[in-house]
Amino acid sequence: MTQADTPPSLAEALHQDALAVNAELDRLIPLPDGPERVVHEAMRYSSLDGGKRLRPFLAMRSAALFGVAEDAALRVGCAVEMVHCYSLIHDDLPCMDDDDMRRGRPTCHRQFGEATALLAGDALLTRAFEVLADPATHPDPAVRCELVAALAHASGADGMVGGQMIDLRASQFAQDMPAITRLQQMKTGRLIGFSCEAGAILGKAPSQARLALRNYAHDLGLAFQIADDLLDVEGDAAEVGKRVGKDEDAGKATFVSLLGVERARAQADMLAEQASRHLDMFDERAVLLQAVARFVVERRS
Amino acid sequence: MTQADTPPSLAEALHQDALAVNAELDRLIPLPDGPERVVHEAMRYSSLDGGKRLRPFLAMRSAALFGVAEDAALRVGCAVEMVHCYSLIHDDLPCMDDDDMRRGRPTCHRQFGEATALLAGDALLTRAFEVLADPATHPDPAVRCELVAALAHASGADGMVGGQMIDLRASQFAQDMPAITRLQQMKTGRLIGFSCEAGAILGKAPSQARLALRNYAHDLGLAFQIADDLLDVEGDAAEVGKRVGKDEDAGKATFVSLLGVERARAQADMLAEQASRHLDMFDERAVLLQAVARFVVERRS
Repeated sequence: MTQADTPPSLAEALHQDALAVNAELDRLIPLPDGPERVVHEAMRYSSLDGGKRLRPFLAMRSAALFGVAEDAALRVGCAVEMVHCYSLIHDDLPCMDDDDMRRGRPTCHRQFGEATALLAGDALLTRAFEVLADPATHPDPAVRCELVAALAHASGADGMVGGQMIDLRASQFAQDMPAITRLQQMKTGRLIGFSCEAGAILGKAPSQARLALRNYAHDLGLAFQIADDLLDVEGDAAEVGKRVGKDEDAGKATFVSLLGVERARAQADMLAEQASRHLDMFDERAVLLQAVARFVVERRS
Repeated sequence: MTQADTPPSLAEALHQDALAVNAELDRLIPLPDGPERVVHEAMRYSSLDGGKRLRPFLAMRSAALFGVAEDAALRVGCAVEMVHCYSLIHDDLPCMDDDDMRRGRPTCHRQFGEATALLAGDALLTRAFEVLADPATHPDPAVRCELVAALAHASGADGMVGGQMIDLRASQFAQDMPAITRLQQMKTGRLIGFSCEAGAILGKAPSQARLALRNYAHDLGLAFQIADDLLDVEGDAAEVGKRVGKDEDAGKATFVSLLGVERARAQADMLAEQASRHLDMFDERAVLLQAVARFVVERRS
């Protein structure tokens, strides 16, 4: 590999992609002058300038495997980030987790009130589908429809929302490893899975490549969640940017409460390694996706 | 017109379409066995067996103008009804209108709790887009994408959600006729507009026919809202199926508070008549859509 071919370091790539996502979200969520302006302000408050942008990164870097135009992948990355941000807004509401802090700032409802936060979440979810269906996302409407269907499936009652539902009622059900694994695959895994799958959809990738990405996303999603559970136990609220220790306070089983810290850490490392290997077929083109698998289990926030 | 060509009466057509909508929603919102089941129960509780099904009726009868397959129009009608039902669930929440009764039954959050109601609304909205993007809705993906984009635009921050936002903060803004008209066009008009437009999209209707339907929907939506305001003042809670008198209690300007009962009634009648005339180009094919314009201003619930 010559110097010119050397991929940027992961930190640099994450940073560059996050900047691009912010700029694109800024365009995709304009600020009108009418009396409805406050809901747009709340949408922007909860989606601009925050978070790791892991999901857009996955979408953009998966798309790059197949030579997809960068602006198309960026739009899809923004759509999945809108869905992620809507889920955080609703999850933070008093009737759900009742959280005051998110990404180091007051949560949306603490800043704008509950009603506005509710509507801002609704509007972000809706906007995500509008962006995907727009011809600017891909010239082929069949590709756009596949993206809409896949995102809806990942984020609806059979995916993320179903996972949130189970999470709320977890204490009423068996909380063993199979149950927690299914819950987390629905709650966070499906959207991470969509992010990777989106690249394959945009690139009309062959089925073998799709399968590799699906397996990668599966292991990555679990590794991500175990790392999240470890942060909830070991992390510092200021660094993490949100309340920690809340799973234990809520009496919720997690990978850490079921496995213990050491085994959970080992499991996360193993999954990250395994995720990486699923992408070996892409050779050095997948180096950033492989690096992000390690990043996900080593992050401090 | 021969006997065989005579259209069924409006009441019969509304009833038949509502039965078809119920049966289709029952299929589109299945009830799984897992611990996430309760969110599906709440989705079904708030969408099956209730309401006038005005929006699906408009979608199905508009589609019929262009010879669209009935099952396609039915799916689109169900999608728009899902969005309508999600908006009612969220609108009824304590942080919004805080209503206990809807369609003569406890509201979703009174029946299932706030968190489940919030998630059921989210899931219905998501499912609507999934249904539209599905190849079963139309063989042409360009048509499906147009439906997704149009529904998202009608229901998001520039449409229904924006209207709900303004409504919440109405007391902080001028509440004159132009302001109330814009609010109501966003809050209820856009989704009614989509319902009619959907038929034209499904039928790949020529632009003149689309424009006629758009004008029809515009006047129908306003007539509908004025009739709603009149019911809020004159209606009986048991008959209407929800709390009445709440606009006055909330100090909200309405068409009735601005125009008075008599002028509001006259305005609704005029708009219904005008809506009807926009469809004259369709001759007797539009007789049911014309009849529903009268129904909308004469209804008691």
